Amino acid sequence: MSPLPPEHPFSEGLQRRPVNHQPLTPIRFLLRSADVFPHRHAWVHGRRSATYEEFLARCRRVASWLQESGIRPGDTVAALLPNTPAMLECHYSVPMAGAVLNTINTRLDAATVRYILQHGKAQLLFADTEHRGLVEGAMGGIATNDRPRVIWAADSEGPAPEAIGTDYEDIAGKGTPAHEIRMPEDEWEAISLNYTSGTTGHPKGVVYHHRGAYLTAMNNQLVWDLGHYPVYLWTLPMFHCNGWCFPWTIIALGGTNVCLRRVEGDAILDAIHARGVTHFCGAPIVLATVTEAASKLTEPLPRTVRVMTAAAPPPATVIEAMQAKGFHITHVYGLTESYGPAVVSAWQEEWADLAPAEQARLKSRQGVRYPSLEELRIMNPESMEPVPRDGATLGEVMIRGNIVMKGYLRNKEATDAAFAGDWFHTGDLAVAHPDGYIELKDRSKDIIISGGENISSIEVENALYRHPGVAAVAVVARPDAKWGETPCAFVELRDDADAVTEAELIAFCRSQLAHFKAPKTVVFGALPKTSTGKVQKFALRERARAL
Amino acid sequence: MSPLPPEHPFSEGLQRRPVNHQPLTPIRFLLRSADVFPHRHAWVHGRRSATYEEFLARCRRVASWLQESGIRPGDTVAALLPNTPAMLECHYSVPMAGAVLNTINTRLDAATVRYILQHGKAQLLFADTEHRGLVEGAMGGIATNDRPRVIWAADSEGPAPEAIGTDYEDIAGKGTPAHEIRMPEDEWEAISLNYTSGTTGHPKGVVYHHRGAYLTAMNNQLVWDLGHYPVYLWTLPMFHCNGWCFPWTIIALGGTNVCLRRVEGDAILDAIHARGVTHFCGAPIVLATVTEAASKLTEPLPRTVRVMTAAAPPPATVIEAMQAKGFHITHVYGLTESYGPAVVSAWQEEWADLAPAEQARLKSRQGVRYPSLEELRIMNPESMEPVPRDGATLGEVMIRGNIVMKGYLRNKEATDAAFAGDWFHTGDLAVAHPDGYIELKDRSKDIIISGGENISSIEVENALYRHPGVAAVAVVARPDAKWGETPCAFVELRDDADAVTEAELIAFCRSQLAHFKAPKTVVFGALPKTSTGKVQKFALRERARAL
Repeated sequence: MSPLPPEHPFSEGLQRRPVNHQPLTPIRFLLRSADVFPHRHAWVHGRRSATYEEFLARCRRVASWLQESGIRPGDTVAALLPNTPAMLECHYSVPMAGAVLNTINTRLDAATVRYILQHGKAQLLFADTEHRGLVEGAMGGIATNDRPRVIWAADSEGPAPEAIGTDYEDIAGKGTPAHEIRMPEDEWEAISLNYTSGTTGHPKGVVYHHRGAYLTAMNNQLVWDLGHYPVYLWTLPMFHCNGWCFPWTIIALGGTNVCLRRVEGDAILDAIHARGVTHFCGAPIVLATVTEAASKLTEPLPRTVRVMTAAAPPPATVIEAMQAKGFHITHVYGLTESYGPAVVSAWQEEWADLAPAEQARLKSRQGVRYPSLEELRIMNPESMEPVPRDGATLGEVMIRGNIVMKGYLRNKEATDAAFAGDWFHTGDLAVAHPDGYIELKDRSKDIIISGGENISSIEVENALYRHPGVAAVAVVARPDAKWGETPCAFVELRDDADAVTEAELIAFCRSQLAHFKAPKTVVFGALPKTSTGKVQKFALRERARAL
Repeated sequence: MSPLPPEHPFSEGLQRRPVNHQPLTPIRFLLRSADVFPHRHAWVHGRRSATYEEFLARCRRVASWLQESGIRPGDTVAALLPNTPAMLECHYSVPMAGAVLNTINTRLDAATVRYILQHGKAQLLFADTEHRGLVEGAMGGIATNDRPRVIWAADSEGPAPEAIGTDYEDIAGKGTPAHEIRMPEDEWEAISLNYTSGTTGHPKGVVYHHRGAYLTAMNNQLVWDLGHYPVYLWTLPMFHCNGWCFPWTIIALGGTNVCLRRVEGDAILDAIHARGVTHFCGAPIVLATVTEAASKLTEPLPRTVRVMTAAAPPPATVIEAMQAKGFHITHVYGLTESYGPAVVSAWQEEWADLAPAEQARLKSRQGVRYPSLEELRIMNPESMEPVPRDGATLGEVMIRGNIVMKGYLRNKEATDAAFAGDWFHTGDLAVAHPDGYIELKDRSKDIIISGGENISSIEVENALYRHPGVAAVAVVARPDAKWGETPCAFVELRDDADAVTEAELIAFCRSQLAHFKAPKTVVFGALPKTSTGKVQKFALRERARAL
């Protein structure tokens, strides 16, 4: 690939060799940390814990067992697990056998889990006993010979164990490994497979490689102030983008993973106090849960707790409330296709002098690229020309670089479409501000077109969030004979705000927005959400159509 | 390279493309930081400064001018510069033209500079006007047609400018670039060339590649607590291992480079107070200079200042004294062949409870590998078997991984010898402690063999450093008819310690060491040092032979 001919003095005799060129792989993080910090805790979980030495030994046993059981390089090993030690260990043991880890969202329905197992051709499935019904439902529709072998994990903090045959703990906890770790021969080899939860159609299998996982893990440290030895609480499901690659980041730093089966406000605060948690990640719904629980606290947090959030732009009001409680928020943006976060709302020192509300507004923008995301542009998808940095012109978020997926598994058409023009098309619409920070305005498909004018549903939602009675909101398009579409707002009110009316909210919006942007309809009630706290807009669109 | 066949589902249609695979290169750090932090200071120097936006513009102009001047990809561009903005900018502008940066030690003699310019086939030389005599001396021995073109840099903080034709500032400060930045087509392309200052024979040209420079720069941040926006003082010459890759690390972090022509104690303290310096690097001689200057301070430092040190194991007493003044020491080890630091004496939290002297002793060990140094072993160079982790058995330090050089330029024989058995042979002797930390005992050639017993010169030096009258010491072998060799100590005394005698120091050593290890001869006087503060033992060995 080098443009210098092989006889050039800077090429000749200076080729890659094992002494100076090794595949980049997160497996190396564990090998190093087990060597350097053997007695530190790699994870804690209820009353159990594992030092780095023990963690490596457990992963080695599982990797060896996988090879012993016939798993070959390039085979798929699936995991249907909450944020338990078994799930964390899969992030090392499966690649250490040369296999590809396919973590599956535990909140999916049986038909979707079945589709994923069949499409990914999983040879083996690690599953938590809590999800027995889901697994059996998924397996029910698969011919007996095609079903992956299931290894149950009866987690110490989960439901009481049943008779389940070989248990995960039998494999991880006992024996001397018979096989060596298999290191990747090429850093481009697949390390994991993550199905995107599309709102329509079949999910697509996003393939990650060792190089991208390694670089994202290092970038997480570079952009976030993780320091040495973070104590990281697992509030973000590891089945989302491999927990944004944090199973690899935390181990690289000699940190401690605090496992957690369920995201509950009191459990999070307990972990902050009892475990010394310094960092956690989560969607805005996690932030809301924590804020709610923290509102009952009479004492300040024992230390600043750093929170990384993504999945939806956090309302400035939420950021401000969290910071007042002693949490420090870092806002990131990314997609399954970019290994999770690839854009960060990087803090600028001169913002320190601004009012908290203004700081929160700046932070609620998605921001700038991770160092290993070589390029980020807001472009007109037709002309592929960048939009001006005017904070107003909408374009599509396009990225390229070393933390973009290999592509979609068994789906060349979708891969080529997503990579058209050698840019990854995110499908998200944003503006570029004069300072280069990007701000998401909408998913392409969430744009509301009313009377020929584009309306950003997020802009309307942000307006409604400013109303003191509003707890949560989602705005979608409602078909309209006259205007084509009109904005329809679904609103959850705060407990103490029953008196708020549709007319009041519409008037409130009209006082802040161009009048055509105000909702024409307001529906009160609980919002349907996915497991990450994303509002299920497709469900709301159906409801809006039926109104 | 992948062992999966191209038709495997995790390979097919999932090949590398520009959208998901870009060469790793530190050039990207500057492009990102200029975009994200355009108004932060990239460097300050006397009354001058450059924002990131200006810094990128200056580097672009120089890169464009180089291409305009006929510099082609793979050509060598040399620099004979102190730690000025011009030197920092060369670390970007030269690679941005596709050329290879060869920084040359400004304290070398003219004959060695001539050898380097000729061996590296430099097409062009950027030189500070202070070094006019050295450049002219070097050029004198080169045929007119073979001389590289010289561009003088008349630094604002240097000697008064003379008539010098095109000045560096004419290129960097003016004009619109006519050429685009040339990004590497392959991360294995050479980025720089660093000649090792061997004690005998011709220096060897160590070739760095973009991938290794990128990874070392990221590793510096990973192992050192640099945080965001460090203010970094240039006490370490950038002509050593490209300043341990810190010109790339600091720019990646949006930090500020505080340039410095001369390493003087008062100037360092001034920079800490006036510039807000948070970090600097240097050999132990720099630490000694700072400790000396700091001893006059009546007020504490305005903040903890973090210092990274290498080149020779810092005596525990120096570490302890520095820490008492408010400096925080991180000890690293590496070689030119490993991009500078590749091993770090990583801090373990449980050491916090130990006495300061014990902490300093632990820190004075070289430590554990950088994350991107995939393997570090102390091996018997004959059998290539690792030595036991017993803190006693000597072996040679061997490394391999992504931060090992491409090899030596135009020297296949030396490259192959250094890489024998697919390990880089450092030539340094060390032990491995039970906790895995390595501790250097000697350069292979510095071992003293007396009466068939091996004596580590460092062990004897450490003993002498404990004497209150000793300021600096070096121990070498002196030929001896009876014992083969005996240890001979060269000692610099503190100003207030004139009364110390040879007999007293020998007795002092015998009270601490096995008697055969005590020096048989002590010579008082100033030690000859290289520009990095390494004692020139080869000169002392000659003196010892002549005694």
